[in-house]
Amino acid sequence: MTKLIQCVPNFSEGRRLEIVEKIVQAITCVPSVNVLDQSSDASHNRSVITFVGPPEAVKRAAYSAVEKAAELIDMEIHRGEHPRIGAADVVPLIPVSGVTMDECVSLARELGRKIGENLGIPVYLYEEAALVPERKNLAAVRRGEYEGLKEAIGEPGGRPDFGPPYLHPNAGATAVGARPPLIAYNINLDCNDVEIARKIARSIRGSGGGYPSIKALGVLTEERNTVQVTINVCNYRLVSLARIFETVKSEAARYGVGIKNSEIIGLLPMEALLDAAAFYLRLQDFHEGQVLEKRLTE
Amino acid sequence: MTKLIQCVPNFSEGRRLEIVEKIVQAITCVPSVNVLDQSSDASHNRSVITFVGPPEAVKRAAYSAVEKAAELIDMEIHRGEHPRIGAADVVPLIPVSGVTMDECVSLARELGRKIGENLGIPVYLYEEAALVPERKNLAAVRRGEYEGLKEAIGEPGGRPDFGPPYLHPNAGATAVGARPPLIAYNINLDCNDVEIARKIARSIRGSGGGYPSIKALGVLTEERNTVQVTINVCNYRLVSLARIFETVKSEAARYGVGIKNSEIIGLLPMEALLDAAAFYLRLQDFHEGQVLEKRLTE
Repeated sequence: MTKLIQCVPNFSEGRRLEIVEKIVQAITCVPSVNVLDQSSDASHNRSVITFVGPPEAVKRAAYSAVEKAAELIDMEIHRGEHPRIGAADVVPLIPVSGVTMDECVSLARELGRKIGENLGIPVYLYEEAALVPERKNLAAVRRGEYEGLKEAIGEPGGRPDFGPPYLHPNAGATAVGARPPLIAYNINLDCNDVEIARKIARSIRGSGGGYPSIKALGVLTEERNTVQVTINVCNYRLVSLARIFETVKSEAARYGVGIKNSEIIGLLPMEALLDAAAFYLRLQDFHEGQVLEKRLTE
Repeated sequence: MTKLIQCVPNFSEGRRLEIVEKIVQAITCVPSVNVLDQSSDASHNRSVITFVGPPEAVKRAAYSAVEKAAELIDMEIHRGEHPRIGAADVVPLIPVSGVTMDECVSLARELGRKIGENLGIPVYLYEEAALVPERKNLAAVRRGEYEGLKEAIGEPGGRPDFGPPYLHPNAGATAVGARPPLIAYNINLDCNDVEIARKIARSIRGSGGGYPSIKALGVLTEERNTVQVTINVCNYRLVSLARIFETVKSEAARYGVGIKNSEIIGLLPMEALLDAAAFYLRLQDFHEGQVLEKRLTE
């Protein structure tokens, strides 16, 4: 089986699409790498690019993209709703086929070293690739964000895993990691009170006593005049999309608020949506092999 | 994207499995065609074979199968519960991926012409491929069955679309068509009063004033001590699984009855389940290309 790794880097630019396009080009010009998806969010001022390829090609393409982002994005003037520490904010590697998580961890560490040493950008290894246990949690790495990290990077426990012990003048820092597939899932509420979205986010996320594999924030999405619970589903096999939707619906009802709609940002595994269909249709004895497209790829 | 068509021919032999096996072999020996499923029913004395492949390969395989059935099955001695007009009774072509319904219609007509001209079997085009409006409905084509068609084929309006205006001496006639994927979907009610299942079936099916693309019956499933609305979803793009589930739920509630669960029999297109997930999660701006497996096969 072909060894395939997926890489889903996030960049701190979601408004000037010509800059995002140049980062995409830095990725696509690496042979045998395929860009599967890209999406930019103006209020988050952030873009997510998804690409796949064989391990070494993915490493080269990810490095090029980080280099290009450092050339084109200035964190000193960046503003956006989403927490971030650098121009190339996070670079996760995800096993897709023929590759173990351990191989992704090794590749992430090689990539981190190269970024730190060649580009002068401090690198924090996170999730499965973390060398410091506290950095398994990406939120801990991003605490204080770009602005806070300027000081924190010099404090005990703040030192990056690779690169200099100070931020890059315009590119900040980068978190490089290895992890299972993550689903970026947003639920829009039928109200404009961001406090309600924040309370719901607190109630469902691990750090608030909710689901340990869920990360969530309440944010205002100005262009839609509505508020949003923006969620990272870190392990959809532990907590399904349907369970998250129903939990948010129930919490929102406690404030007399309904759910307007929800959205999936980027890609997700088919299984996550089949689970939702099976939940709501109460399917019994259903298996993925009944899906025609699944049978055709076997 | 690879062009793929599914073909689900029905043959008038469900007891002598060695004959069915020879028909399957005529299909599998065509390169790039895959048989996904086969099932034989002794009381119907009928077999259903499901295979997929690129358009030209499917046309070749379907033609071979019809030829082989004409060689091995004698309609003069065939008896069985299910309505039928020939050895290869119906040959429907179904678009799977990268193929439009119009392409399936063209291919069905080419296939029909070849069967009629080369094998001397009269062919009736049905459903989307029909040239005569009355033949859109397969039941109209099969009215009177093999025995009745011997006379009817010579009457006004009985003339086949291709081939001779009389039955093949042992293979009878064949209906060739194009149609959307059909989903066999059962909803089990939390009660044992079959009359309630029958009333609900009547209210949702086309012939009872419900959805024109739905066929439904209320039946008792003795082994589970429960009743079932058993449904043929003839066009899931017109009436989704979610809408059917919700309509049955609402009709059942009128009798104070709940839905126990539901089940999908056999294969279905991924899109039908993604639609259900999108309905219940209220997904906005979602498209199939966001499913990783879908993207990796493109």
